[in-house]
Amino acid sequence: MHIRVINPNTTAEMTRKIEESARAVAGPGTRLDAVNPAMGPASIESHYDEALSVPGTLAEIAEGERAGVDGYVLACFGDPGLDAARELAAGPVVGIAEAAMHAAAMLGRGFSVVTTLDRTRGRAWDLAARYGAGQTCRGVHACDIPVLELDKDPDVVDRVVAVGRAALDRDDSDVIVLGCAGMADLCGKVSAQLGVPVVDGVAAATVFVQSLITLGLRTSTRNEYAPPLPKAYTGMLADFSS
Amino acid sequence: MHIRVINPNTTAEMTRKIEESARAVAGPGTRLDAVNPAMGPASIESHYDEALSVPGTLAEIAEGERAGVDGYVLACFGDPGLDAARELAAGPVVGIAEAAMHAAAMLGRGFSVVTTLDRTRGRAWDLAARYGAGQTCRGVHACDIPVLELDKDPDVVDRVVAVGRAALDRDDSDVIVLGCAGMADLCGKVSAQLGVPVVDGVAAATVFVQSLITLGLRTSTRNEYAPPLPKAYTGMLADFSS
Amino acid sequence: MHIRVINPNTTAEMTRKIEESARAVAGPGTRLDAVNPAMGPASIESHYDEALSVPGTLAEIAEGERAGVDGYVLACFGDPGLDAARELAAGPVVGIAEAAMHAAAMLGRGFSVVTTLDRTRGRAWDLAARYGAGQTCRGVHACDIPVLELDKDPDVVDRVVAVGRAALDRDDSDVIVLGCAGMADLCGKVSAQLGVPVVDGVAAATVFVQSLITLGLRTSTRNEYAPPLPKAYTGMLADFSS
Amino acid sequence: MHIRVINPNTTAEMTRKIEESARAVAGPGTRLDAVNPAMGPASIESHYDEALSVPGTLAEIAEGERAGVDGYVLACFGDPGLDAARELAAGPVVGIAEAAMHAAAMLGRGFSVVTTLDRTRGRAWDLAARYGAGQTCRGVHACDIPVLELDKDPDVVDRVVAVGRAALDRDDSDVIVLGCAGMADLCGKVSAQLGVPVVDGVAAATVFVQSLITLGLRTSTRNEYAPPLPKAYTGMLADFSS
Amino acid sequence: MHIRVINPNTTAEMTRKIEESARAVAGPGTRLDAVNPAMGPASIESHYDEALSVPGTLAEIAEGERAGVDGYVLACFGDPGLDAARELAAGPVVGIAEAAMHAAAMLGRGFSVVTTLDRTRGRAWDLAARYGAGQTCRGVHACDIPVLELDKDPDVVDRVVAVGRAALDRDDSDVIVLGCAGMADLCGKVSAQLGVPVVDGVAAATVFVQSLITLGLRTSTRNEYAPPLPKAYTGMLADFSS
Amino acid sequence: MHIRVINPNTTAEMTRKIEESARAVAGPGTRLDAVNPAMGPASIESHYDEALSVPGTLAEIAEGERAGVDGYVLACFGDPGLDAARELAAGPVVGIAEAAMHAAAMLGRGFSVVTTLDRTRGRAWDLAARYGAGQTCRGVHACDIPVLELDKDPDVVDRVVAVGRAALDRDDSDVIVLGCAGMADLCGKVSAQLGVPVVDGVAAATVFVQSLITLGLRTSTRNEYAPPLPKAYTGMLADFSS
Repeated sequence: MHIRVINPNTTAEMTRKIEESARAVAGPGTRLDAVNPAMGPASIESHYDEALSVPGTLAEIAEGERAGVDGYVLACFGDPGLDAARELAAGPVVGIAEAAMHAAAMLGRGFSVVTTLDRTRGRAWDLAARYGAGQTCRGVHACDIPVLELDKDPDVVDRVVAVGRAALDRDDSDVIVLGCAGMADLCGKVSAQLGVPVVDGVAAATVFVQSLITLGLRTSTRNEYAPPLPKAYTGMLADFSS
Repeated sequence: MHIRVINPNTTAEMTRKIEESARAVAGPGTRLDAVNPAMGPASIESHYDEALSVPGTLAEIAEGERAGVDGYVLACFGDPGLDAARELAAGPVVGIAEAAMHAAAMLGRGFSVVTTLDRTRGRAWDLAARYGAGQTCRGVHACDIPVLELDKDPDVVDRVVAVGRAALDRDDSDVIVLGCAGMADLCGKVSAQLGVPVVDGVAAATVFVQSLITLGLRTSTRNEYAPPLPKAYTGMLADFSS
Repeated sequence: MHIRVINPNTTAEMTRKIEESARAVAGPGTRLDAVNPAMGPASIESHYDEALSVPGTLAEIAEGERAGVDGYVLACFGDPGLDAARELAAGPVVGIAEAAMHAAAMLGRGFSVVTTLDRTRGRAWDLAARYGAGQTCRGVHACDIPVLELDKDPDVVDRVVAVGRAALDRDDSDVIVLGCAGMADLCGKVSAQLGVPVVDGVAAATVFVQSLITLGLRTSTRNEYAPPLPKAYTGMLADFSS
Repeated sequence: MHIRVINPNTTAEMTRKIEESARAVAGPGTRLDAVNPAMGPASIESHYDEALSVPGTLAEIAEGERAGVDGYVLACFGDPGLDAARELAAGPVVGIAEAAMHAAAMLGRGFSVVTTLDRTRGRAWDLAARYGAGQTCRGVHACDIPVLELDKDPDVVDRVVAVGRAALDRDDSDVIVLGCAGMADLCGKVSAQLGVPVVDGVAAATVFVQSLITLGLRTSTRNEYAPPLPKAYTGMLADFSS
Repeated sequence: MHIRVINPNTTAEMTRKIEESARAVAGPGTRLDAVNPAMGPASIESHYDEALSVPGTLAEIAEGERAGVDGYVLACFGDPGLDAARELAAGPVVGIAEAAMHAAAMLGRGFSVVTTLDRTRGRAWDLAARYGAGQTCRGVHACDIPVLELDKDPDVVDRVVAVGRAALDRDDSDVIVLGCAGMADLCGKVSAQLGVPVVDGVAAATVFVQSLITLGLRTSTRNEYAPPLPKAYTGMLADFSS
Repeated sequence: MHIRVINPNTTAEMTRKIEESARAVAGPGTRLDAVNPAMGPASIESHYDEALSVPGTLAEIAEGERAGVDGYVLACFGDPGLDAARELAAGPVVGIAEAAMHAAAMLGRGFSVVTTLDRTRGRAWDLAARYGAGQTCRGVHACDIPVLELDKDPDVVDRVVAVGRAALDRDDSDVIVLGCAGMADLCGKVSAQLGVPVVDGVAAATVFVQSLITLGLRTSTRNEYAPPLPKAYTGMLADFSS
C-alpha cells in the first residue's frame, strides 16, 4: 500500500523529519513518502496560516490521487483541510491531532496537549470537541517555542518535559499528546522522562491510516464526503476546478 | 461607519442580491458595500469549495483593512475563514450562520435550518456546535436546490416553505433559519407563509456587526485572535505574507 | 421604533443610569425610555429578589404593550421573567445577560463574567447554559460590592479591573462581561485598563433588540411563547388576569 | 416531622387531590398538610402563570417557616420558585419535576414525560437539563388536556395511556413520568395499562423530602442558597421585605 | 418491607458498620439486613477489585430474591454490578453513589466527593456522568486512606474534614459527598465541622430504596432490564446459570 | 509481537470465527491467538452475562501476562472488563466497541450500530458516551437475532443489511458499525450491499492494538490504571488475589 504524508507547511526540512517519524512505524509492505505544498506558509501558527495552508495541501491530495496513493496523513496538529481532503481522496485521510487524540483515549483517563505557541491552543480545543475528546482532553499548554525553532532550540526537550510535567499535575491527566508535527522526534525522550505514554500524532496517524487501509475502509461517500461537485473556479485558483 | 459584506464565492450576481439584503437593514449612518473575491469557486457546496473560498475572502479583508473598513460580514452560511478573518481585521467580523443562530436563539425555543444541498448539512451542525446552538438547532434540512439555481428556480419559495413547514413539525421547532446567503431575498415571503420568524443571516449579520461597532467592540487580541505572525509565504500564495 | 428598557428593581437612580447607557448606543430613529416597577425589591441579589422582581416587570411589559412599545430590554443580569415577558410582548424582548453573552461569543474564544456578590454566580451559570454559552463562559467572579453600592464605592473601577484581570488569567479568557446593569457606566474605563473587549449587557441588549426590530423579527408564537391563556387570577395579583 | 405540600396554583380542589396523593405515601410519623396561595393563577400553563405563582408560593413558605415546617414539596411540574424557596426555608425543598426525574433515573434507561398542554413542554426540558436528566429524559409529550379539565374529562386515563404508549415507542423509553400535579391520581391506572413504572412527582417528592429530613440534610447555606439579604421592598410587594 | 443492604466486599466488620448506618435511617416498618458476599476482594480499590466483587454481589441478589427481599442497596461507592442487579431483582436496586449524587443535587449548587484512594476517582467521575451529575459534581478528592484503614486511622475525621474544606473552596461547591461506604459513620462529625450538608450514600440509598418501594415502583422490565435470558454457564461460574 | 484476542464468552466456535477475522488483518510479524475463558456465559446478551464474563476474561489476561503477550483485544461489543484488564496488562488493551467507534469516527459524519438483541442497546450507548462518540453514534438498532444464532440463521446477512439500510436513513448516518463480535464475518457482504463503510470491531481492534504496540505505547500507570493493589480474595475467587 502507498501512504502519503503531507506536511501542510512549505518547510522541506520539517517534511524530512516528519517522514522519518512516519517511516519508523510504517509496516514492511507500506510504501511511504512525505511531501509538502509548493505554496503557502513556512509554518502554521495562526488560523490565517492554517487557512492558507489548505490550497497547497489539497493540491498534494489531487496529485496523490493521480499517483494512486491509498491513504494520507495530514501532518499538522491543526488538521488543516481534513474535511475537504476527505471529499477529494478515494482512500482514508487521517489528521495527526485526530489520530493522537484517538490513541490517547485508549491509553488512559485523560490527556494533556503540549503545543508550541499559546495562540494555537484554541484550535486544539476545537479539534478535541470535534473528535469527541472534549472530556478526555484535560488541558492544552504552550511551551512558547515557535514551530521552526523546535529544531534549533537546544532546550526543547527540557521545556516540553517541564510543561508536560506541570500539565499532568494541573490537569490530573495520565497521557501527554505532542501538539505539533515538529515535535515528532521528541516523543521517546519526553516519554522516558515523564514516565507516562507520550503520543506523537505523526506516527499515530501513519499506523492508523495503514490500519484503515488494511481493513479495506475508506471515507463514506454517502452524502457529505462525496467528491466535490464540478464547478467553475476563477482567478489564481482556476486550476482547482474539478 | 463602513461595513463590508463579503460574498465568499465569485458570482457577482449573488453579491448584488446579498448587498440589497444588507442595505435594506443597515442604519442611515452606515456606509455599506458588498464585494466578492477575484479567485475561487462560483458557489460553495462542499468542504472543498469552502476551503478554497477562504484565500479570496482573506484577500478582501486585507483590502478592506487598507480601505479603513470598520467591520465585515462573511456572507456564506459556512462562515468560511471566520477565525482567520478575525485575526486579520481590526474591527469585528460576523458570519451569517453565526448571526442567524444567535438571532434565532432570542426568538424562540428552537430553530430549524433550511439549506440548499444535503451534503452541506454537516457543516451547519459543526457551526451550531461552535456557536453554542447544539441544543437550539433542532434540525438541518436540504431543499435540494443548488446555490446558483436559487434565483432561477420558479418554485424556490414553495420548496423552501414546504421543507420549512415539515421541519417545524418534525423538529418541534418554532423558528426557521435560512441556510444560504442566496436565500436572503426569500425571507419575507417564507415568513408570511409559515407564520413563524424566518431569519436571514445576511441581514442579521449586518445589523449585528453594526451593533458591535456602535458598542465600540472588536475582536479580542489578547491571545488567539492577535494579528498573524509575519512569516514567509511561497509560491502562488506569496502575496499573502503579512 | 420605540424601545423600552425595564430595570426590574425599584431604584429609580439606577434606572436613570441604565437609560443613559442605552441611549448612548440607540440609533437616531429610536425612541428609547427606561422604567422600573412600582413594586418589588430595591435591588436583586438573590433568587428571592429575582422572583419577586418579576410581577412588577411583567406589569411594565403589559403597560408597554398598551403604549405600543416595539421591543424591550430586561436590564438585570439575571434576566428575570424573560420567558414570561416573551409570552406577553408582541415584539422582541432581550435580556442583558443574554445579549452580553451572545456579543461576547462574537468577540473572542471565551469570556469571564465580573459580577457583584458571590451568591449571584449560580444564576449566571444557569443563564450561560441556557444561552448556549456553557463552554464560552469560562468563569463568573464576584467583586463583593452590593448592587446599590456600585455608585457609591469610589474604588469600584479598580475593584472590577482587579477581578477582571485575575479572571482573564485564571479562566484563560479574552473577553470580560459585566455582570450587573449597575456596572453599565464602567464599561469604557474597565476596557481601557484591561485591554480586552468589555461587554455591558445594557448597551448590548439595546442594540440587539433594535436589530431584531429592524429585521422585522419577533418572538415566535407557534407554541411555547404564544400569549398566555386567559384565566382567573385571585388575591393581590387579581389584576394580572389577562 | 412536619411536611408541607404547596400547590402553587389557587385551585383548592386540586390542592385536596394533591394532599391525598402525598398522604398515601407519607410515613406514619409524618405530619403532612397541603396548602395553596391566596393569590395568583387558578392553574399554571404558561411561563406567565408560573412566574405569577411564585409570590404566593413564597408567602406559603414564609408562613411555613413561622409554623416550624421541616420540609416542603412544590407541587407543580414547573417547580416554580424552587431556588427562591430554598433560600427562604431552613429545611429541604423538593420540586415534583425534580423528584420524578431523579426517581425515574433509578428505574430504567430513559423516561418520557406526559404532560398537559403543548406549550408547557419547553419548561419540562429546561428542568430536565437543570436536574441532569438531559439525556435520560427522552421526550415530553402533551395530551392536550388543560390542567383544570383533568378531573372533568372522562377520557383522561385513556388519553394519558395512549400518549404514554406512543411515547415509549417513539422515545425508546422504559419509564413514564406524569407531567402535572393534577395527574397524581392517575398513576396506578396508567401504570397498570402500560406495564412500565409510572412516576407521579407529588408522591415522589413527598417521600424524597421525608428522606432528606430523616437524613438530617437541608439546603446548603454556604453561598448561593443562604437566606436572602434584608432589603426594602415597595408597593404591593412591600410585605415580602425580609 | 424487607430491604437488603449488600456490602460488595468480603469484610464482615465493614458490613456491620454499614448496617448500623442503614438501620439508623430506616423506617419503623422496614426490615433491614446487611450481607456481604462469600467470595471476592476484602476491599474495593481498583477496577479489578470492583469487577471481581460483582459475582458475589449478584449471588447475594439471587439469594435475596429467593428470600422475598423487596429492594436492595449496593453499598460500595463504585456501585458495582448495578445494571446486572437490576436485571436480577424484581424490586428496586439503588447504588450508594447514585443515591448520594441524587440527594446532593437537591441540596445545593454543586458537590465535591471525598474518597479514599486517588486511583478510585476515575470511577466516581464515570458514575457522575452516568447519573446526570457531570456538571453538579465539581471535584473528586482522595484522602489517601485505604478502605480498610478508615476504621483504624485515628485521624480519619480530621483528614476528611481537611480534604473536604479544601474541596469546597477549590471546587466552589456547597455540599460534600462521602465517597466510600466505609465513611458512613463519619457523616455527622464531618458535617458539624464543615458547616455544609454531608451526604453518606449508605443512608441515602436506604431511604431512597425505601421510598421507591413505598411508591410501588420497581425497575422497568420493558427492555434492557428484563430478567437475563436463560443460558448455559460453565466452569466455576456454572451455578450462575439462571 | 504477540497479540491475544479474548472472546469473553465460552463458545469455542465463536472464538474460532473471531480468530479468523483478526488473523486476516494482522501484520506479517504479528503472532496472534484467540482464546476464551473456561468459566462464564455461553453468550453475552445482558448486563448479567457481561458482568459474569469478566472474571474469566481477567483470568485470560493474567495467563497472557505470564506468557508475555504484548497486547489484547476484548472481542465482545460490550467491552467487558476493559478498565480492569488495563490495570492487569502491561501492554495495551483495546475493546472492539472502542476500536469500531474510533475507526468509524475517522470515516464519516456519523455511524449507526447494528446489534443483536434490543436489550443490549443501552450498553452500546453507554460505551459511545464513554468513548466520546455520544454525538457521532447516531443510532443503535437490533436485528433481533441472538448471538449464537448468527451462524445458523441463513437470513442473517439480509437482516443486517435491512436493519443497516433503515438505520442509515433514519439516523442520517454514513457509516455502519457491527455491534457483535459474532458478526465479524459479515462485514464484507454487508458493506457490498449497503455501499457505505461497515466496521467490524474485531478486525479494527486487532489493527489498533497492533498499532499501539508498534508505537511503543501502553496504558498509563500514572494513577487509575496502575496494577491493582495486592489484597486478600476469598471463596471461589481466592485465586484472583494478586
